[in-house]
Amino acid sequence: MAVYTDVSDQALDEFLRLYNVGELLWCKGIAEGVENSNYILATDKGQYILTLYEARVDENDLPFFLGLMSHLAENGLETAKPIEQNNGAIYSQLCGKPAALIEFLDGMAMKAPNHQNLHQLGVAAAKFHLTAETFNIKRKNGLSLADWRPLLNSCGNDIDKVAPNVDDGLQKFLTQELDFLEKNWPKKLPDGVIHADLFPDNVFFMHGELSGIIDFYFACNEIYAYELAIVINAWCFEKDGELNLTKVRAFFKGYQSVRKLEQAELDAMPTLCRGAAMRFLLTRLYDWMNVPEDALVIPKKPDEYIRNLSFHQRITDYKEYGIE
Amino acid sequence: MAVYTDVSDQALDEFLRLYNVGELLWCKGIAEGVENSNYILATDKGQYILTLYEARVDENDLPFFLGLMSHLAENGLETAKPIEQNNGAIYSQLCGKPAALIEFLDGMAMKAPNHQNLHQLGVAAAKFHLTAETFNIKRKNGLSLADWRPLLNSCGNDIDKVAPNVDDGLQKFLTQELDFLEKNWPKKLPDGVIHADLFPDNVFFMHGELSGIIDFYFACNEIYAYELAIVINAWCFEKDGELNLTKVRAFFKGYQSVRKLEQAELDAMPTLCRGAAMRFLLTRLYDWMNVPEDALVIPKKPDEYIRNLSFHQRITDYKEYGIE
Repeated sequence: MAVYTDVSDQALDEFLRLYNVGELLWCKGIAEGVENSNYILATDKGQYILTLYEARVDENDLPFFLGLMSHLAENGLETAKPIEQNNGAIYSQLCGKPAALIEFLDGMAMKAPNHQNLHQLGVAAAKFHLTAETFNIKRKNGLSLADWRPLLNSCGNDIDKVAPNVDDGLQKFLTQELDFLEKNWPKKLPDGVIHADLFPDNVFFMHGELSGIIDFYFACNEIYAYELAIVINAWCFEKDGELNLTKVRAFFKGYQSVRKLEQAELDAMPTLCRGAAMRFLLTRLYDWMNVPEDALVIPKKPDEYIRNLSFHQRITDYKEYGIE
Repeated sequence: MAVYTDVSDQALDEFLRLYNVGELLWCKGIAEGVENSNYILATDKGQYILTLYEARVDENDLPFFLGLMSHLAENGLETAKPIEQNNGAIYSQLCGKPAALIEFLDGMAMKAPNHQNLHQLGVAAAKFHLTAETFNIKRKNGLSLADWRPLLNSCGNDIDKVAPNVDDGLQKFLTQELDFLEKNWPKKLPDGVIHADLFPDNVFFMHGELSGIIDFYFACNEIYAYELAIVINAWCFEKDGELNLTKVRAFFKGYQSVRKLEQAELDAMPTLCRGAAMRFLLTRLYDWMNVPEDALVIPKKPDEYIRNLSFHQRITDYKEYGIE
């Protein structure tokens, strides 16, 4: 939940006059998005999401993020389209922060997605990858393999206490895993723009069908198969820590119905899954070690990804994930 | 901002099946209301507010609160009407909490209301009072004069440090003021149901007109003029601590255009204003002294009401408020 910036009536009125969206009827802060302030607002022409980009989003990345959203939406993907201002801009300043008005998408995140939803997600992810091939801006992944060791170091020397159940301590567990990943990370796999944060919170469904993908603020150029590894981690483990092979299988079937994976991509899945678990483990660990005193959002402990990572370490062949 | 209870897809679906509101399209937690969890949701039939009543609201009071809202809305007031379930109920359990589905009101709270808005508010407050005279449930004010001294005592012995600028200390300041209020509180004034929390957050405007009153969860039977004293405290002081007499005058003019105040009500205004300042001062002080470690909402310091109370102590005649 997050509304960090309080927008005055007057500032909002002035901002909306930059658009051809009619007269404001109401505006409410919503408990969605961790990095930014989000509002839902209605005018006599429709409903929109107003996003104010807080410190964690670099304004220089907005042409990539918002441009990508426009590109995907214009090409028929279920993504929210940024609204153009009368002068053609897709963002400007509001209360001293960059802000964008974005089309409102019906649908809602699923707390208990089923294997049909995973199949739909696979189709959408593959369409995303193929459609973004004609998008002409690039963005480096700021949380790639090369960033993980510095990120671990910045968590401090006192991380063992976060996970007392890890044999030999969390520090050693992660250091050894980074050694492995740096040595075994795949070098040449098909790549392009990926969403890079395709969690259940960021995918809407309506009447059982995928209706929208949101929150593009980690999107970047990366190995396509890494996106699939993120989805396995974020969508396919049950609460008891078991991997739901039916969900993995359905997701890959959906994906491959649009974009066929190369054998090298499949073979790399166990390593990519370890990497995806490492990436979310490290950011959660960092946030856990650095909770600001006035935090509005209480961070999640990294435990879930320690568990996932241990699971992936035991996998030797992609077929063990249920991928056909 | 507040979303305390996380509602599962399935629980929400089951809850909505109790109503004839069509199929759910989306649902988002909103940053509105401090005491309860609030969601905005849309179905193919319309938009609604879903409220889950958290610990601070007594379920036994819901027939009063929700019944009052229905009564006022049915009589043409700008208030949100609770939606009836198919069996006629206006609330039931959701995720172990009492919950109600309430009509969605267009409009939004004004951060900088002007004197025209205050006039409209006066008209609406008087209509509220008169319309509620035919509502047949009663509710005692849980934060009335008799409750203030116990509330002060429950704040502990260490309150002086909250307001180091108060001469002789906050404890003595408040104790002496309670002595005054207990001695001088008006005994026989017209009474009935009042909103009792008529703050700018709880009144919506659209296109410059008052479009809705929300958040009835402090409503109770009280002296009518006490509601006006709350409005003076909550709406009519400028940020620099000055009272805006034009706003007070406009509010009273609006009110009296619907319900004429008796001379005794006018004469009691300075004392009632001191009481209203005391009531909000004490609850803010209590919340400030009792912030839970995992608080999602950071309480406001009581300073503003210490300032208001000092102001009212210097008033000897209601005309000094600008009331004509």
